[in-house]
Amino acid sequence: MSKNKIKIEVEPIGIRFFSGSPANCLKSIQDAGIEIKSVCRGKGTCGKDRIMFMNGSIKEPTEQELKMLSKEEIAHGVRLACQHDFTEDTSIYIPASSLSEEQKLQVVGQERDIKVDPTVKKYYIKLERATLKDVKADFNRIKDALKNTHSIDINRIDFHVLGEMPQILRENGWEITVSERNGEIILIEGKDRTARNFGIAVDLGTTKIAALLVDLSTGKTIDKKGVMNPQISFGEDVMSRIDFASEGSSKLSQIQQVVLDAINGAVKDLCDSNALKTSEILEMTLVGNTAMHHLFLGLPVRQLGLSPFPALTSDCLDLKAREVGINIASGGYIYLMPVVAGFIGSDHLAMILSTSLYNMEGNCIGIDIGTNTEIALISRGKLYSVSTASGPAFEGAHIRYGMRAAPGAIERVIIDPQTCIPKIQTIDDKEPAGICGSGILDAIAEMLKANIINKRGKFNLESGCICKDNMGNLQYVLIADFHIKRMEQNQNCGADFIKGVNGSSEKDMELVKKSLCSCDEVISINQRDIVEIQLAKGAMRAGIEILLENAKINFTDIDKIIIAGAFGSYIDPKNVINIGMFPNVPLKKISQVGNAASIGAKMALISKDQRKIAEDIGKMDNYLELTIFPSFSDHFATSVSFPSPEEII
Amino acid sequence: MSKNKIKIEVEPIGIRFFSGSPANCLKSIQDAGIEIKSVCRGKGTCGKDRIMFMNGSIKEPTEQELKMLSKEEIAHGVRLACQHDFTEDTSIYIPASSLSEEQKLQVVGQERDIKVDPTVKKYYIKLERATLKDVKADFNRIKDALKNTHSIDINRIDFHVLGEMPQILRENGWEITVSERNGEIILIEGKDRTARNFGIAVDLGTTKIAALLVDLSTGKTIDKKGVMNPQISFGEDVMSRIDFASEGSSKLSQIQQVVLDAINGAVKDLCDSNALKTSEILEMTLVGNTAMHHLFLGLPVRQLGLSPFPALTSDCLDLKAREVGINIASGGYIYLMPVVAGFIGSDHLAMILSTSLYNMEGNCIGIDIGTNTEIALISRGKLYSVSTASGPAFEGAHIRYGMRAAPGAIERVIIDPQTCIPKIQTIDDKEPAGICGSGILDAIAEMLKANIINKRGKFNLESGCICKDNMGNLQYVLIADFHIKRMEQNQNCGADFIKGVNGSSEKDMELVKKSLCSCDEVISINQRDIVEIQLAKGAMRAGIEILLENAKINFTDIDKIIIAGAFGSYIDPKNVINIGMFPNVPLKKISQVGNAASIGAKMALISKDQRKIAEDIGKMDNYLELTIFPSFSDHFATSVSFPSPEEII
Repeated sequence: MSKNKIKIEVEPIGIRFFSGSPANCLKSIQDAGIEIKSVCRGKGTCGKDRIMFMNGSIKEPTEQELKMLSKEEIAHGVRLACQHDFTEDTSIYIPASSLSEEQKLQVVGQERDIKVDPTVKKYYIKLERATLKDVKADFNRIKDALKNTHSIDINRIDFHVLGEMPQILRENGWEITVSERNGEIILIEGKDRTARNFGIAVDLGTTKIAALLVDLSTGKTIDKKGVMNPQISFGEDVMSRIDFASEGSSKLSQIQQVVLDAINGAVKDLCDSNALKTSEILEMTLVGNTAMHHLFLGLPVRQLGLSPFPALTSDCLDLKAREVGINIASGGYIYLMPVVAGFIGSDHLAMILSTSLYNMEGNCIGIDIGTNTEIALISRGKLYSVSTASGPAFEGAHIRYGMRAAPGAIERVIIDPQTCIPKIQTIDDKEPAGICGSGILDAIAEMLKANIINKRGKFNLESGCICKDNMGNLQYVLIADFHIKRMEQNQNCGADFIKGVNGSSEKDMELVKKSLCSCDEVISINQRDIVEIQLAKGAMRAGIEILLENAKINFTDIDKIIIAGAFGSYIDPKNVINIGMFPNVPLKKISQVGNAASIGAKMALISKDQRKIAEDIGKMDNYLELTIFPSFSDHFATSVSFPSPEEII
Repeated sequence: MSKNKIKIEVEPIGIRFFSGSPANCLKSIQDAGIEIKSVCRGKGTCGKDRIMFMNGSIKEPTEQELKMLSKEEIAHGVRLACQHDFTEDTSIYIPASSLSEEQKLQVVGQERDIKVDPTVKKYYIKLERATLKDVKADFNRIKDALKNTHSIDINRIDFHVLGEMPQILRENGWEITVSERNGEIILIEGKDRTARNFGIAVDLGTTKIAALLVDLSTGKTIDKKGVMNPQISFGEDVMSRIDFASEGSSKLSQIQQVVLDAINGAVKDLCDSNALKTSEILEMTLVGNTAMHHLFLGLPVRQLGLSPFPALTSDCLDLKAREVGINIASGGYIYLMPVVAGFIGSDHLAMILSTSLYNMEGNCIGIDIGTNTEIALISRGKLYSVSTASGPAFEGAHIRYGMRAAPGAIERVIIDPQTCIPKIQTIDDKEPAGICGSGILDAIAEMLKANIINKRGKFNLESGCICKDNMGNLQYVLIADFHIKRMEQNQNCGADFIKGVNGSSEKDMELVKKSLCSCDEVISINQRDIVEIQLAKGAMRAGIEILLENAKINFTDIDKIIIAGAFGSYIDPKNVINIGMFPNVPLKKISQVGNAASIGAKMALISKDQRKIAEDIGKMDNYLELTIFPSFSDHFATSVSFPSPEEII
């Protein structure tokens, strides 16, 4: 690499790339494959391409920026990417609002270079025509030709392909392309089609489905598509869906069918956009949590809802796609990586695979935050996983104004430590409609930092208006009735209150005025929201503590923490520490890798070796059932507390 | 029902059905489920589908009918069903000779004692229940138990069984019986069901389907069932069916479906009669000629009708029965032995297997006589097979009064050498309805012996009445007009005539008087019938000669001739020699083994070793294409002649 290459680190997506110097920031970011928004195409008039410079010398704002950005933003290092050049090694932060919707679905995490060696390979052969002197059967003629010209041993042919074979042979002058998979012929096409070999990798999430269209010859991702999981209409969380599917076989079929339809639709869209037929897709890999995995296959899930929650199988499954109901090549297969246990799915395994956690030196943790948070620890070559019922608080559920990370969701909250005035940022800069996980995390961390709540999660005053005086000292005004109106005219006060907004008798803290919200209510964080977050992060922390205890190590022994998943790539790692989800560790030990599960699925798609490794990970992974550890409840009780104000960074 | 429905009454079967109007008579009768014969599939050239109009306006005979039917028939309202439409309420009479009635089926041949070692085995296991301390997945729990208690390695589970598994486990207190096949679990049942392990072996013939219900634990045949192949309604011979199936994929599906229905029906009947559920049948093996094999699987057959007639595959096929459409255990398989070539099917291979021809010492021939006659020769450890287009004469087709071996068919003919009076025997001693293969063979051999026909197959007199005087010397009376009446009162004469019976202008020999026949005609053998037999036996003999020539041996070197198949077990071996199908060999060298194909199918069902041997036979068998041997036409020309009277034994 030439000397003047500079290194750019992009948070929170966790991508690192190299750039020439100087290079326009917007263009470099786009060249690195990151879908940053830019409506005006670099003129600085749309203001969509906000980035934040985390280190290095902060550039002076341009005239255009002075028009487009607030003073606070400028003070915090926010700039428009199109207006500046990278000239030195730099860390930048790209807020979700500057990323395209596609990028936000985070279908692409960090890809690793691996040897491309897919299960399905294509071979072109030209056959001698059958004659009375050589009446070998068609299939045996093909077998012999593959053996002679490509040294490939064929032991079977897909039953459907066998039926299509004679016509294809005869209509194409006995020139064909054979797709071979583990000794089986799974497709025969006329003429030379060896350059067209495609597969699809799917991460089937409870909320979102991410599909990658992959060229199996080169290993390159050609296109990607993210769709919502339509099973949401049967319940947002996994347990509701398990309950629904357990009502009877027709319900099970129903909840299976909608997800099959969604995946088939995504496959069709990807094919249409890339001038492919779905019958050219030769293989699919799919990962998901255990319930998604079972429901996708139409397998019963009742036992996943009853202690001890066993999975039906923790082997990989290699199934004819047509048997499952997936519309790809008639002879094509779908490969499902193993699930480890009822609450440790193949998405977790895919994360361990794609992050290389399984063979990391030292002690490393991989965590994927969700309704169930799966955490893996590799320590001295041994791999352990736990699943904690962290609840859906970080997905916005069970939070009064919570919502998913959709346009209008508050995704960033900064509370001015001097005035206690909150500043918010919403996804796509839409009118605030609610708070998503990263916003909640921020809000609580900032409330702790501003001393609005204490380490037990309680508001620091009974009721009243928090404000600071001109010297910056915390003041508050006791108010007898929670149901007071916002004291907007009180110049002594900041803009933040603990009070019963929205007619509630509970304390809460206002984030956005009613008049500014699309929901036509005050958006606030209340005491119960705080408790939800305490329970969620407490469960995660307790899970980590059990992993450490079981491996007989301390948190200080941890060399690396990998936060995976779409949510994990949005959050501010500093605030993860500030709420005590993790103990105080150097931030450089934390990396955010985006959707590691779909990358794992892709790796298994393009490499036989990686598929084998995934199966080995399934076998080496020791699932720890948290509830059988006597110390778990103690850890949990301790973990619900927040750090003291002096520990906040 | 719409106004233009008309009512059709069918005598003597007593079936009444409704039809649209106008509707082709043949098609309507077939659609009503009546198995009326039709070899030419409605072209009016076979003359098999005679019906008699009992009331209503009698249709004018078509040009084709004027060729095929006698004046008397036409006067009596006899018509060919394919030539007319039903246009009004009608009563018709279908003579027995036009129906393909149930036949005597020979499903069991000679069984050999072999070691019982089926592909599917059952194991009873009692599992430790899943607990929070032991949350192993259900399937993995089963795998481990099978390994620990039975040393069985499981590598996969059928996808459907996986879905049924959790409920069966939990409803049976974790006591189950697992059916294992090549490392795959294909059935899970509650409690101990190891004593119940069943399979079905099928010989799918062009005319008949024979199914054996077999206990896979003991290897014993529990029950058997024979049904007609309902594809007969699409054409009696293989080529007509190939033509039909090649008309389009819907026709292919249609001709496949009727045979699937018939086999599923036979399976159901066998199960019902033996207090079994069809879901307890764990495996099926099936053999048949190549066209039947392909049509059963719904595979295209067009290429089987076009030179060089290649099969689609000559490998064995191991398919999930549900993929084919066979209703046995959901995870069960159907195993199809290899076919060798377009005209050497797996029934031939099954015959070679069950007769042990493949490992016989010396030079041995195995022959299965049919429309195509397959002949195998083992000579010095090398196996060769040929197929000769012998035509369906020995199945009764193309013979004027020919019929299949059904009740009423003349199956034995003896001609008194003194009086030339024929004596006949019919199947089930029913009123004579026609002549089946063994009867034709006998009749011709006896006509040769009695010097009624000569070695060229020609009648020994121009026209007239054959008789012998009291001294037994052959006499004949020349008669000017073929259409004479039977001279019953002539005491100088025997009872046998060469004359134009039935109003024909051709010479023929009466076997049964009109008044004694259910078909209300004189049953006779005519010159064209003799030619058909000459061609058929000539083709077989020429095939044998090519096999001998290729192996560089003479017929005198042959140590054994095995005649297989239902037909083969009916015939008189002496007459096989007397018509010159084989040269004169000691009768003790000939053995008749009945339905060797279904026994071969059963052997492959109960023994992995035999299955392997069958596959090896498929590989060792050298198919010889007769037409590429320059000497074939000479052999054929020579072989159509009969032996001289002095050679008759």
